[in-house]
Amino acid sequence: MKTLLLIGIGAGDPEHITVQAINALNRASVFFVLDKGQTAEDLVRLRLEICERYIREPAYRVVQVSDPQRDSSTPSYTQGVEDWHEQRAEVFQRLIEDELAEGESGAFLLWGEPGLYDSTLRILERVRANGCTGFDYEVIPGISSVQALAARHRVPLNGIGQPIRITTGRRLTAADLDNVVVMLDAHCAFQAFTQENLDIYWGAYLGTADEILIAGKLADVCEQIKHTREAARQRKGWIMDTYLLRRRLAPDL
Amino acid sequence: MKTLLLIGIGAGDPEHITVQAINALNRASVFFVLDKGQTAEDLVRLRLEICERYIREPAYRVVQVSDPQRDSSTPSYTQGVEDWHEQRAEVFQRLIEDELAEGESGAFLLWGEPGLYDSTLRILERVRANGCTGFDYEVIPGISSVQALAARHRVPLNGIGQPIRITTGRRLTAADLDNVVVMLDAHCAFQAFTQENLDIYWGAYLGTADEILIAGKLADVCEQIKHTREAARQRKGWIMDTYLLRRRLAPDL
Repeated sequence: MKTLLLIGIGAGDPEHITVQAINALNRASVFFVLDKGQTAEDLVRLRLEICERYIREPAYRVVQVSDPQRDSSTPSYTQGVEDWHEQRAEVFQRLIEDELAEGESGAFLLWGEPGLYDSTLRILERVRANGCTGFDYEVIPGISSVQALAARHRVPLNGIGQPIRITTGRRLTAADLDNVVVMLDAHCAFQAFTQENLDIYWGAYLGTADEILIAGKLADVCEQIKHTREAARQRKGWIMDTYLLRRRLAPDL
Repeated sequence: MKTLLLIGIGAGDPEHITVQAINALNRASVFFVLDKGQTAEDLVRLRLEICERYIREPAYRVVQVSDPQRDSSTPSYTQGVEDWHEQRAEVFQRLIEDELAEGESGAFLLWGEPGLYDSTLRILERVRANGCTGFDYEVIPGISSVQALAARHRVPLNGIGQPIRITTGRRLTAADLDNVVVMLDAHCAFQAFTQENLDIYWGAYLGTADEILIAGKLADVCEQIKHTREAARQRKGWIMDTYLLRRRLAPDL
């Protein structure tokens, strides 16, 4: 049997890593690094730094492969994701068959929480469904950017006894605004709601040396976030950000 | 200045702890342990084990205090919580004033994620609002039971590109059922929805030696979960559990 380890490594700060994740790193013989092109070079480097910092016997191999890109020209979002997952499943199957010996463990180092808007687990299920079944896998939870955001702003994620919604920029609607965390928002979906009485807690590159935090009444800080975000994205070539929107309960005096 | 550290210590497994949390433990001179009565003795013991395991110089003090109980006879839930928070704020203020010297750091060890259904952060804001301002505080995120649940069941928290709701048993409604994580549910609110085509992923005592996992079609496993839960609660005297409910997308063949 071969084992795959899906290891959550936190939101950017190498100290977000758990003892469970460090132990998993030390069980792996091979690290699979999926290269998503130039913009993610920083992220690949951060992963390798985590290996260097926490692995006690540096006898591991690193296998870097080119990650298929999602074809955003496909008219249907669902079909685009479907095709992309199938391509990734073929890459993963090749890695498992060619790069991992019987009895070995291979690791994927995943940003944030493996269960939250990460497709690795789903791809492995697809590899199995495609008939490649000679492997088992484990999931090791990790600190998500949502948690890093809340901790850095020192704000609870929920109102007292109230529900929380986590969604994507693509899916954000007015019905969500009581209390919503938004991830994967490339288009600043929050800007549609400046007429509402909302607070926003925004963060980019959370946990890293480049971390940026902005909080305030949405109407007051909306433009500042947009400009800051765009300037940072141009400077670094990529951005990862997330935010919490929450309706103000008290009247705005 | 005095510093308070709100440290997320994970969902039960001592290896859920992060390197950031271990470093914070080692900065603290005092640990505040709020005793919630006999049922939580196990939880107090687990916290002290974490201190013993991860603190390099055991020169710390442990201050154990009786945590005020919420008066569940108050007709209004909100007023009951309000009164309870005020009582806790008074306890916290006394701890800060009497048990922490200038320049010292005191720590609260919090199960799961400090931003998720935990009132410590809110209580500290209230202490400040009440005029006790000679302290600063930091939040260190931790692995929540939601993440432990998803990892142990090896299931993503979200459908592809779909939102997630996190709510309490008290608040669970039919509108949530597409994809919802339920916490703090003492009354098995899921049992109202066995007519719906749902999968449930349930877990109790996640990350501990007593961990119990049950998953399946809700209609098939509802009674099993209820019986297992009640038997475990009686045996141990307390239970902490959480679950994910998700509507089945494919027709049930």
